[in-house]
Amino acid sequence: MKVMRITEPGGPEVLAEEERPEPTPGPGELRVRVRATALNRADLIQIRGHYPAPPDVPPDVPGLEYAGEVEAVGPRTRRFKVGDRVMGLVGGGAWAQQLLTHEREALPMPEGMDFTDAAALPEAYLTAYDALVLQGGLKPGETVVVHAVASGVGSAAALLCQAMGARVVGTGRNAAKLARASEWGVARTVLCESSPPSFADAVREETGGRGADLCLDLVGGDYVPESLQALAPRGRMMLVGLVAGMHTDLNLGLLLTKRLTMTGTVLRSRPVEEKMALTQSAERHLLPLFRSGALRAVVDAVLPKAELRQGLERMARNDSVGKLVVRWE
Amino acid sequence: MKVMRITEPGGPEVLAEEERPEPTPGPGELRVRVRATALNRADLIQIRGHYPAPPDVPPDVPGLEYAGEVEAVGPRTRRFKVGDRVMGLVGGGAWAQQLLTHEREALPMPEGMDFTDAAALPEAYLTAYDALVLQGGLKPGETVVVHAVASGVGSAAALLCQAMGARVVGTGRNAAKLARASEWGVARTVLCESSPPSFADAVREETGGRGADLCLDLVGGDYVPESLQALAPRGRMMLVGLVAGMHTDLNLGLLLTKRLTMTGTVLRSRPVEEKMALTQSAERHLLPLFRSGALRAVVDAVLPKAELRQGLERMARNDSVGKLVVRWE
Repeated sequence: MKVMRITEPGGPEVLAEEERPEPTPGPGELRVRVRATALNRADLIQIRGHYPAPPDVPPDVPGLEYAGEVEAVGPRTRRFKVGDRVMGLVGGGAWAQQLLTHEREALPMPEGMDFTDAAALPEAYLTAYDALVLQGGLKPGETVVVHAVASGVGSAAALLCQAMGARVVGTGRNAAKLARASEWGVARTVLCESSPPSFADAVREETGGRGADLCLDLVGGDYVPESLQALAPRGRMMLVGLVAGMHTDLNLGLLLTKRLTMTGTVLRSRPVEEKMALTQSAERHLLPLFRSGALRAVVDAVLPKAELRQGLERMARNDSVGKLVVRWE
Repeated sequence: MKVMRITEPGGPEVLAEEERPEPTPGPGELRVRVRATALNRADLIQIRGHYPAPPDVPPDVPGLEYAGEVEAVGPRTRRFKVGDRVMGLVGGGAWAQQLLTHEREALPMPEGMDFTDAAALPEAYLTAYDALVLQGGLKPGETVVVHAVASGVGSAAALLCQAMGARVVGTGRNAAKLARASEWGVARTVLCESSPPSFADAVREETGGRGADLCLDLVGGDYVPESLQALAPRGRMMLVGLVAGMHTDLNLGLLLTKRLTMTGTVLRSRPVEEKMALTQSAERHLLPLFRSGALRAVVDAVLPKAELRQGLERMARNDSVGKLVVRWE
């Protein structure tokens, strides 16, 4: 099978196609013929050598999500059969013609959806669902601040909030991209061109002075102090990404008096039982919303495999809105 | 009735006794004849003028906890009758001969306990129980870092952890006070004389390299970064006090990769329904442990009312171990 391999640490130019032996599924596993995959910021970091793959994942083949067909099943596999269309998250190795996954980490593709839309769903929606709902306790009527709302996770989070009766204030650094946010039900957008960013006043205005109940922060850095300012008493802050920086000054007094909670979270390093549990929960709670159309793929572009590197460059320039999908013939 | 009143912002010397009219209990309320009260660091801050009382509390009479007898009940009061011995938390006004409280915010005193021990329980144990159990999700087998373990809340937290099958690593700045910690079941103590403090290595050593599951931080400031270092993956940090400072540098990368949660919490400003819920939960879950002796008052000294000011000075010097109780004849 063909894979896209990291030949040495660097930029997208260090990727090269290579032939690898076909993998054999073990007990409970599926071998998936990948038809489409998608790009994530974590791939860029891994290619630069700063985000090593977890154990039991090909260390030199990026790719965290896929859609494709079940091509072979291992012993004691019950949920899927050869020919089933599946999608899912993997710890790495999805930029390949074939991959192995445990059947409890795979989701059935929504009927009628094509592979390129399906490949855009897993990372964005499982991240948003886990952070907002399972950990963040999102409830109807709440107001949620979503940073980088035009990103893959950001747009998925906005659609999920809308589907659950919550309201979104979305931030971003690009006016043209923010203009798209009304498509995902975003009630108000705040353009953040300066550093540190300024959005807490807008959030308070949007909530009658109260502040937001929840913040999904894909940015970190100097967005954090302002996010704490923007939260209502007992507000929850979910920290999912750090593109704006790894350190910040923390006002502990604010954390105490407003009784705030800050939670850092990441999917990739989780143990297998947690990945399975998240997948199974998403099957029960998200799949019906994909079927009904309340949740959908937000796709920036679908690229042929030969243009994967250009796709990474586009993502690195922050030009994309939603997901960059790569077709894997 | 006599109260201890703040005449102007300042130190303990600004307190003066004053006569006030006897209060009349409203629906569901009790008038309690206070027999003993206790001192808290929050009283010192309030006397200095930096911690205003919540609404519906005498703004100039400190005192957050009491033990005494029900002297009168208002209409529709069901749980207590005149003569019952009760203890509890109030938003202020406990340094008085009498106070009003809603009956669902009062706890029956454990049988056989005297007023001075009972007055030492509410703030320390409700704070520890709420932070460790209700919000922190403490489970048996866990390791908990308790800062300022010789304080009122610290010693109560240690006893609660011991009663629930969890292990405590306690920190403190005074070797003589730390030497008392084995009385409360503390497995290991770490003396923190330097700034920033250093205890993460000891915690890792005590947990086979894994780190602590939970941290009860009564200190804040530069204890926070080291506490995050001391936590295991998915560790929870409960921030309850800030005597070491209001700001810190926060390593967001650590929060993300270890999937940590930081929660700030405070009891005093909570709405009445939350105070009632906490009291009722404590009645169900803590009172049995007071009765059995697993939890007990840790009392530094019992002072006559005339020495309340000296008690505050002792607390400000960090000389006390456990609670300073004041008898209110």
